[in-house]
Amino acid sequence: MKPLRVALLGCGVVGIEVVRLLREQAADLAARVGAPLELAGIAVRRPDRVREGVDPALLTTDAEALVTRPDVDIVIEVIGGIEPARSLLLAAMKTGKSVITANKALLAEDGATLFAAAREYNADLYYEASVAGAIPLLRPLRESLVGDHVQRVLGIVNGTTNYILDQMDTHGAGFTEALEEAQALGYAEADPTADVEGFDAAAKAAILAQLAFHTPVTAADVHREGITEVTAADVAGAKEMDSVVKLLAICERIPSAGGRNGRGVSVRVYPAMIPRTHPLASVREAYNAVFVEAESAGSLMFYGAGAGGAPTASAIMGDLVAVARNLIAGTPGPVEVTYASLPVLPMGETTTRYYIELDVADEAGVLATVAEEFARNDVSIKAVRQEGLGAEAKLVVVTHRAPDAALSATVETLGRLPSVREVASVMRVEGDE
Amino acid sequence: MKPLRVALLGCGVVGIEVVRLLREQAADLAARVGAPLELAGIAVRRPDRVREGVDPALLTTDAEALVTRPDVDIVIEVIGGIEPARSLLLAAMKTGKSVITANKALLAEDGATLFAAAREYNADLYYEASVAGAIPLLRPLRESLVGDHVQRVLGIVNGTTNYILDQMDTHGAGFTEALEEAQALGYAEADPTADVEGFDAAAKAAILAQLAFHTPVTAADVHREGITEVTAADVAGAKEMDSVVKLLAICERIPSAGGRNGRGVSVRVYPAMIPRTHPLASVREAYNAVFVEAESAGSLMFYGAGAGGAPTASAIMGDLVAVARNLIAGTPGPVEVTYASLPVLPMGETTTRYYIELDVADEAGVLATVAEEFARNDVSIKAVRQEGLGAEAKLVVVTHRAPDAALSATVETLGRLPSVREVASVMRVEGDE
Repeated sequence: MKPLRVALLGCGVVGIEVVRLLREQAADLAARVGAPLELAGIAVRRPDRVREGVDPALLTTDAEALVTRPDVDIVIEVIGGIEPARSLLLAAMKTGKSVITANKALLAEDGATLFAAAREYNADLYYEASVAGAIPLLRPLRESLVGDHVQRVLGIVNGTTNYILDQMDTHGAGFTEALEEAQALGYAEADPTADVEGFDAAAKAAILAQLAFHTPVTAADVHREGITEVTAADVAGAKEMDSVVKLLAICERIPSAGGRNGRGVSVRVYPAMIPRTHPLASVREAYNAVFVEAESAGSLMFYGAGAGGAPTASAIMGDLVAVARNLIAGTPGPVEVTYASLPVLPMGETTTRYYIELDVADEAGVLATVAEEFARNDVSIKAVRQEGLGAEAKLVVVTHRAPDAALSATVETLGRLPSVREVASVMRVEGDE
Repeated sequence: MKPLRVALLGCGVVGIEVVRLLREQAADLAARVGAPLELAGIAVRRPDRVREGVDPALLTTDAEALVTRPDVDIVIEVIGGIEPARSLLLAAMKTGKSVITANKALLAEDGATLFAAAREYNADLYYEASVAGAIPLLRPLRESLVGDHVQRVLGIVNGTTNYILDQMDTHGAGFTEALEEAQALGYAEADPTADVEGFDAAAKAAILAQLAFHTPVTAADVHREGITEVTAADVAGAKEMDSVVKLLAICERIPSAGGRNGRGVSVRVYPAMIPRTHPLASVREAYNAVFVEAESAGSLMFYGAGAGGAPTASAIMGDLVAVARNLIAGTPGPVEVTYASLPVLPMGETTTRYYIELDVADEAGVLATVAEEFARNDVSIKAVRQEGLGAEAKLVVVTHRAPDAALSATVETLGRLPSVREVASVMRVEGDE
């Protein structure tokens, strides 16, 4: 059988592993595809850099020429970022190539343009590696659960922040200290903004929501809060609740009175407490895990390494075999469908639960005053705990589910009560009530 | 677009849910497939039984006629057992139908015949629902990890036995008591043999091993031990080791000096201790979870409901959409490949670790005598704990990895030592050393 020819865009941590797997797994890949896979060229910015195991003769700086070369059948993009990745992928699809990308930022910002091109040019566009590394997650959502009705996706999709929060939980470290340790160990980058401010998780949430609900969702639609303001006190408060703080990406169908599709979807990223008995609570260090709740399948969880060269390359290989088989068969795989087109609801309309810790004046009537504020905002209290005396007096309140707007309005008015010295900690609570 | 017509074989707990999903999800399924799906007929043994939501006009007792009807495109088999399921599936593929089955017993006993027929008649044969219910597991193994190199699959694939062992762990119950409770709650059948003797798990292990290692494996190749002999003392012993007893299905590549494929595979089902820190240890009640270790992807885990009508039907719907899309495209999906054809090694050649608890005479030199037996069999000891005095004296030994044959030979000779009153507990230990 005639070999299929692969162009690789980018040759960093992931690209090098792709080259290695193409070489080491060549016999296996050929057996599974039904034809050998051959590397046609690798586009890089600095061709003179030494890359172990990479044949320098394959390197080129002319990515535009590479993606449209007639002897290239499949293009793998691991450059990242919006441009030139988008233009290169579009050019490749336009000239009939199948494309595979790990580019979550591009998919979350402008997936619609890529999906439209895939449809227009009848080209394959696969991107398993863009979310949660090697964990097979998009394919199950796209294919296995396609005959089910997904209600909620709840996941830990950023390894850096999970590592930091896990250190804070295990060793009582503060955020800054835990971040520095993560940086020293290579879990966090020198500029950690994309991770700790939740941008990376928000991009993944957008991709997951789109797949789960067949609805267009971009990164800009995602309500995003990072972990920079999570304090040692927040983590200690969670411990007292037998809970743990995790940065969660949540994609939820918001029910409506009539119709099974719901009145919209909520897509959000924020640190929240989840009970230690929840399967996500035991996800340690830089691991990722995604919990999916579907009407018929019930609760599913997918767990594994969410990043790294080899795991990401493994996910790319799975996509590569699929698109290669599709090319031989002459039929592209399923294109993204957004037929449901549900609205993305604002955060204020989403119902959540709050954990609120208040430093209060140790005087009679404080609890009554506080409780009155909750009632005024129509927020129902699930549990209250009063602790300490004098200057140490504190009040911990956990609410039932209420619209986020009502909850944040309550917190704001509580902060202005004369008997409340300080709102010491506010954290959302997730995991079943 | 012309509808695709579906024949259903069997209408029990799973079949009824398939009918429900075909009705309730009709619009979604049509959108995802690109054509409506229509139920053409349902083969049952007792057509006069009342089945809620099932149109009696669709029922027939003539399954042979139904599977070869020219107006049927896809056949879903949820009868179970070897015959008539096998003949019906073969007849369906022979007349060009795509088939979907949840029949683990048939796939584990005679999958080769089905795969050969799929190849010969160019027909789709999908069976996600046969292992671990709704958990998307076979598709990731077949497709996502296809470019990786799977080293080990370690899973809890039987909900009944996990429920029983979880009760024993949580409440200190004995096996019989826990089984009776599981039967009362509907987690175990009146005749629990298939579950508690490990036959169900062994069938699933054979299917998983075949997929993971591209090697033909049948249920008869699987070393199988059930949980009927697990005692409250075994579970208590595990607790002292900060471990938990689980019925594990293990498919492992056995390394060789040269070559990456290894010198064979080991496929086995038995109760074993795993540390409480292992992700599988926290799988409670009747849940299933499967841990996969692959060379590039690292450790992955898949978790969810392993049985039940709705979860199994959800997995069938995923397969249904895939085969329907393949039919419209005119290209069948990937057929099982067994090109690696590795030998299945006997249990004796598999290396494991043992936990051994001995009731010993409280006299000088016992430890030396016992240690000498281990040394004679070339088994290295990892830890020893001596406890109690007089008639209560016991010795707990945990070994390093050694061939199972050497370990069981050691246990046998230990039982014959005059200073050993009784071998009180023997349990294999899994999870990384």
